Amino acid sequence: MKPSIPKGTRDFGPEEMIRRDYIFSSIKAVFQKYGFLPIETPAMENLSTLLGKYGEEGDKLLFKILNSGDFLSKTDAGIRNDSISLAPAISEKGLRYDLTVPFARFVVQHQNDLTFPFKRYQIQPVWRADKPQKGRYREFYQCDVDVIGSKSLLNEVELIQIINEVFGILKLNVCLKLNNRKILYGIAEAMNATDNFMDITVAIDKLEKIGSKGVLDELKAKGIADKSIEVMTPILEFSGNNADKLALLKQKIGSSETGAKGIEEMETIFNYLADMHLDIEIDIDLTLARGLNYYTGSIFEVKAKDVQIGSICGGGRYDDLTGIFGLQGMSGVGISFGADRIYDVLEQLSAFPNEAAQSTQVLFVNFGEKETKYCLSILADLRKSGVKAEMYPDVAKMKKQFSYADSRKIPFVIIAGENEIQTGQVTLKNMNTGQQSTVAKESILKEVSDKY
Amino acid sequence: MKPSIPKGTRDFGPEEMIRRDYIFSSIKAVFQKYGFLPIETPAMENLSTLLGKYGEEGDKLLFKILNSGDFLSKTDAGIRNDSISLAPAISEKGLRYDLTVPFARFVVQHQNDLTFPFKRYQIQPVWRADKPQKGRYREFYQCDVDVIGSKSLLNEVELIQIINEVFGILKLNVCLKLNNRKILYGIAEAMNATDNFMDITVAIDKLEKIGSKGVLDELKAKGIADKSIEVMTPILEFSGNNADKLALLKQKIGSSETGAKGIEEMETIFNYLADMHLDIEIDIDLTLARGLNYYTGSIFEVKAKDVQIGSICGGGRYDDLTGIFGLQGMSGVGISFGADRIYDVLEQLSAFPNEAAQSTQVLFVNFGEKETKYCLSILADLRKSGVKAEMYPDVAKMKKQFSYADSRKIPFVIIAGENEIQTGQVTLKNMNTGQQSTVAKESILKEVSDKY
Repeated sequence: MKPSIPKGTRDFGPEEMIRRDYIFSSIKAVFQKYGFLPIETPAMENLSTLLGKYGEEGDKLLFKILNSGDFLSKTDAGIRNDSISLAPAISEKGLRYDLTVPFARFVVQHQNDLTFPFKRYQIQPVWRADKPQKGRYREFYQCDVDVIGSKSLLNEVELIQIINEVFGILKLNVCLKLNNRKILYGIAEAMNATDNFMDITVAIDKLEKIGSKGVLDELKAKGIADKSIEVMTPILEFSGNNADKLALLKQKIGSSETGAKGIEEMETIFNYLADMHLDIEIDIDLTLARGLNYYTGSIFEVKAKDVQIGSICGGGRYDDLTGIFGLQGMSGVGISFGADRIYDVLEQLSAFPNEAAQSTQVLFVNFGEKETKYCLSILADLRKSGVKAEMYPDVAKMKKQFSYADSRKIPFVIIAGENEIQTGQVTLKNMNTGQQSTVAKESILKEVSDKY
Repeated sequence: MKPSIPKGTRDFGPEEMIRRDYIFSSIKAVFQKYGFLPIETPAMENLSTLLGKYGEEGDKLLFKILNSGDFLSKTDAGIRNDSISLAPAISEKGLRYDLTVPFARFVVQHQNDLTFPFKRYQIQPVWRADKPQKGRYREFYQCDVDVIGSKSLLNEVELIQIINEVFGILKLNVCLKLNNRKILYGIAEAMNATDNFMDITVAIDKLEKIGSKGVLDELKAKGIADKSIEVMTPILEFSGNNADKLALLKQKIGSSETGAKGIEEMETIFNYLADMHLDIEIDIDLTLARGLNYYTGSIFEVKAKDVQIGSICGGGRYDDLTGIFGLQGMSGVGISFGADRIYDVLEQLSAFPNEAAQSTQVLFVNFGEKETKYCLSILADLRKSGVKAEMYPDVAKMKKQFSYADSRKIPFVIIAGENEIQTGQVTLKNMNTGQQSTVAKESILKEVSDKY
């Protein structure tokens, strides 16, 4: 029987790990530069914390932990033939589904120990019993960064700076799409159709797929009056730069109090950004309705420009995240970087940096005990100087030891036999050029650093 | 209802995270310097991979994942009232219990893609449904480093160097205890009591608790002949340095083939170590019998000298780790660092370094939009130079903003009002000394770096 792992999960070998670490470290360094602090929460949460937070579909996708021991002993015999009734009786804990709900739980539970505004980042795996498919896994990492306890739009500005800086470091060409739930609500208000708010956003969300005529037809089908639909038409035709878009919105929905507030929020953000000369393209995009039930102000989404893939980062403002756990009035705003998708994009573009520096730089060939003793002291000196180095542990054929160096992509091999030991030297082979030279053992560090 | 987390699990706030990261980074840097490569495996494994690998007690401590959907549908009605029969029918996956079994599974599954000897490290949480108590958690991290596919004792030497270096960096005073299962077996052989091998090691293991008379009494009670016990007596009285101990062992159990092999292995290791002048104390300790069913050669255990706590690192050689998954003849040796216990030791000794460098260094006070704009460009410059800096996001009372800086332990606060803006300066307050000075905005970086 060949061993395997559960479907939808993955092993990460050394090469993938080094590349993933490059992504995580880049993101983490930026988070820290902006004053965000790390937290971690347990993989298992009480099911009472998780259930009902992700909709009916989400509840089904939670991985539940079977209670330990005689888990049936406290269950009623009457429910033992029904999965739906039995599940909550034999399972109290579940695996984390995202980082946002555990974060809200964390803030409420530790509110007296935290300093607000609390700026935290969190990089951990989450688990979802989704149907596995290309690019969708049952275990994947989220990299979340949030500020909670501050309504200031400076937080939104800072998150945009973080997006700009992270993708700048990763050398990825991206576009940031910006929306505001208040503007969407303002449109519904200007249309005099706030009862149809959901229908309206769902329809707008399809604009790219079905075109403006399709959207208008869909609204008509929902029973929205022609006069209301007329308000929508010019907004769907939306074009020009962000200033043009804001001017049009002001004209069309400025009469809605909520809409005007949303426009003002966006203007404030753009006003701050104007001085910053960021590299990324930022576009107002009304079709952006992600997490609509959840966000109350700004909505963000980042797409890679050179690769066809879903969003690689997204988030928004939520005015009452911790309310579900009993702490009212805590406004927060945050974004989440999709490390797995970012990995796929970097791989498709061959945009990972040369990782050689991260693995072994020098391999010592093993000829036997006497030679080994000679090599071990040189090896210790190299390591003391911070060089990643190792000795082939077994006395094996040269060919085998060199093929080890090859497949590990080790750039330098050191050979020390009888002759070298007598003269206090070693033979240094550069595996990239094939060049071989005899150097005094005291000069190896210099040779290796020079040629590297 | 106050939100909570499952018993035996923990949240880690920023301060704990920064300290834990200090431990993990220190360990990781050493692993890398010795040529070890990172891997990660999924949190969930198939239960068929995990069951039967940790003994009967271990099987009970596995966290099992309830199958998704109508998990009862494929079960036989006859087993629905019995937890023991029902569990395997409604649960296919379990959470990782340690890193060793998943590593063995990984090696067998990916054997064709790996270069042997394969040197890997792995730092991930594991889960056990143990009774939670002080210092024992249901979710905790292991930091494992193993070489697989090499019988060379140089690997043992290298692991001892790693132990020496890790605890040197962490500035912890530790003692490494060394044993070899072959020596233990040699004792049983010299006693002519190999059938009582387990009894003998169990008794020796209690030496510190019950004294040498206690051990001998216990062996007598197990029916071991007086003549056999006479062989044991001088070994229990064991003293002197490691050379003395090896000489005595040679004399007493050298006639046992296995025992002689074990002594030779230890001599080879000490022979290599002799030139290395390591800082840690290394003691041969026959009472060390950890994981006896598992290890086949060297056994390691590290104890902190200044704090009463169990072992903080341990491991050994296993000649057939991957055999359970069908790959024979792969000898390996490895150790595991107990990050949680190392944390407790460092905390008790107040041996964590000053973490200030890891969190925000400069806070800008927020006076309103105009001042903010002035500050934001200075803030961007500081961050570009690698300074961790932030602006208080809300226009709040000075007192509140300063108390934020205080509780976040931010060493510098920058104040810029009307006057400062006009003169292109800022007021810089050193929060540690209370000293306040006016500096040109171009000189802030220098001031902050100088005083830091």
